[in-house]
Amino acid sequence: MQTVRIAGVGLTHFGVHPERTGRDLFAEAALEAITDASVPRDDVEWVHYGNFMAELAEHQGHQGPLMAESVGLADRPATRHENACTSSGAAFREAVETIRAGSADVVLVGGAERMNNLGTAGATEALAIAADELFEVRAGVTFPGAYALMARAYFAEHGGDRADLAHVAVKNHANATVNEYAQFQREISVEEALDAPMIADPIGMYDACPITDGASAVVLTSESYAREHDVDAPVVVAGSGQGGDALALQDRASLASTPATERAAETAYDDANITVDDVDLTEVHDCFTIAEVLAIEALGFYDEGEGIGAAREEETTRDGPRPVNLSGGLKAKGHPVGATGTGQLVEATRLLRGDHPNSDAVPDATTALTHNAGGTVASAVVHILEVER
Amino acid sequence: MQTVRIAGVGLTHFGVHPERTGRDLFAEAALEAITDASVPRDDVEWVHYGNFMAELAEHQGHQGPLMAESVGLADRPATRHENACTSSGAAFREAVETIRAGSADVVLVGGAERMNNLGTAGATEALAIAADELFEVRAGVTFPGAYALMARAYFAEHGGDRADLAHVAVKNHANATVNEYAQFQREISVEEALDAPMIADPIGMYDACPITDGASAVVLTSESYAREHDVDAPVVVAGSGQGGDALALQDRASLASTPATERAAETAYDDANITVDDVDLTEVHDCFTIAEVLAIEALGFYDEGEGIGAAREEETTRDGPRPVNLSGGLKAKGHPVGATGTGQLVEATRLLRGDHPNSDAVPDATTALTHNAGGTVASAVVHILEVER
Repeated sequence: MQTVRIAGVGLTHFGVHPERTGRDLFAEAALEAITDASVPRDDVEWVHYGNFMAELAEHQGHQGPLMAESVGLADRPATRHENACTSSGAAFREAVETIRAGSADVVLVGGAERMNNLGTAGATEALAIAADELFEVRAGVTFPGAYALMARAYFAEHGGDRADLAHVAVKNHANATVNEYAQFQREISVEEALDAPMIADPIGMYDACPITDGASAVVLTSESYAREHDVDAPVVVAGSGQGGDALALQDRASLASTPATERAAETAYDDANITVDDVDLTEVHDCFTIAEVLAIEALGFYDEGEGIGAAREEETTRDGPRPVNLSGGLKAKGHPVGATGTGQLVEATRLLRGDHPNSDAVPDATTALTHNAGGTVASAVVHILEVER
Repeated sequence: MQTVRIAGVGLTHFGVHPERTGRDLFAEAALEAITDASVPRDDVEWVHYGNFMAELAEHQGHQGPLMAESVGLADRPATRHENACTSSGAAFREAVETIRAGSADVVLVGGAERMNNLGTAGATEALAIAADELFEVRAGVTFPGAYALMARAYFAEHGGDRADLAHVAVKNHANATVNEYAQFQREISVEEALDAPMIADPIGMYDACPITDGASAVVLTSESYAREHDVDAPVVVAGSGQGGDALALQDRASLASTPATERAAETAYDDANITVDDVDLTEVHDCFTIAEVLAIEALGFYDEGEGIGAAREEETTRDGPRPVNLSGGLKAKGHPVGATGTGQLVEATRLLRGDHPNSDAVPDATTALTHNAGGTVASAVVHILEVER
């Protein structure tokens, strides 16, 4: 089985770009990744693309060939993968499989999402297709509401309050201040977070990620290609895992835990032959502040019920012992849904390579974990990256 | 690299089932495939799912976990792949990669589509998202119109007429008469085809596939699993290929050829280590009659401009030397978009195993080819199956 290396990464600014199409966004990120990789574009053999809702936002399906064409690779095999908010996390996993199977040596993988052109209400309605239409959406559930149910269940079972969640938002906003790609490059205070408008109690405005347009891309190569072409690709995809769960919350045993993440993490740790203690930095799917708490527990950093205080106690802050979301996370960096999964991998790669503005917080880091989740964590994808110094 | 075997196959009836949801259709086909495989359901490690337009038809995304859950496999990794009409062809390819990469030994792959609940006009509009929204759809292009342009270009370049196309429809209807899963189990005549209402000249009603609801599924296992568990799986996935092209017709060098299919076929023949002459039976993507003509040329059965007479001259008929679409094809069997790719693989598997109603036409067949195309063949996926007797 071929070892998979990250040769190049690219991002657009994550923000409000309603005038830009999905193909325009993707092309920018993908061409940046190809340039960063110093690999001839023509060597790219396969394109994997993640997108969630262009059918609704752009009346556009069949985006695989469209995106390949946008970067001058129209004749390559190109497939779009959709797993709600873990669309490009899943695409990345398929790209890893493509190289591991020996079917290609150079693969372009990424994602894009255009959302702001729908407006806030339109985007919220479109996002709802990640939930169960028949058994959740028709009952009135939207994602802020669903995560509010999960937060309430967590508080009831384990304790914690809105201030604990506010600390997660404060931490991620602080991390984003130096990230030029982030939607919000400004700090907020716990008081601001607690005073912000309530969306779905206990989820306030600062507990929710914004609506974001953007794209991300990664160029992967096989070990043998990297050697033969002397590609500077110090970061290795050491582990990959994916887990699932019932789509509807009502079909879960508990609303206060996310077993899909546990399954994805277990597979990824096994695949990388590491334990959770080997992880130096982590990017998790904090679509809502409670989601970060659930993630760091399910990944094994904290026992169930113990993750709620991690940000408040400065364990997961920039200079804490276990930094989480040094990029700013979905909360502050933004969440262009289909771009988020590979976006996390771009951030983690830069953090490990030392060319991220927050790399100085983790100068000795060798192992990074990315966690991308879909819906109310009916899908979860975890990757482990290792850097060779 | 693990050899991939087809252990079980399943189909729903392809037809008009507007009252059935995507999950209901998929569960029927998937459970039939699992039963046919005689593999314990719990041994399935991964689910790959193809669907094109449930966002529009059912207001439902994130179908990977939904479909896994529908067959009692909610905790498995499950991803939905979308490549327009080659969605489940692409899903099948990812499933093959999963086993070849050594990431799973038993994989469930399939697809479903619900279309008739949208009505004919609604379905036609939804199907248009497989074309380029900005440069084709807004100019008024729908798929009958696009394929009409391709047929006219073909006639202008190579000759041929509507009667040649009618013979394709007549052949595929004849093949479907014995197929209990087919939408149309009745013969038509050349005269009926030529007299039918014109949709987009020269595409008449009998040149177009119908709007169909349905699902299909396949259980794949690794060679080592099949041996260890003594699974009866005589059909091997010997080759897999995929090719792309510019999404919009205006960006192609010619409207009378389909290079994405040529690329997919070349890769698949190489992968299987065969030539086109080794192929005993073929299922091609005849969404329109002209599409079958273009496909049999691009696959290498005929030189460019020579495929138009194949059906009329009874070369590709049931009892001809080179049978194409013994299932009835998309034309008569129906085209539930996301189910079509794996549906072709189900038909080809049964034809090779000898348990298809048309198997008696190809008693000595050892090699089958399936060809699944998306849009105006901006995507093409080709698979080669071989049976061990």
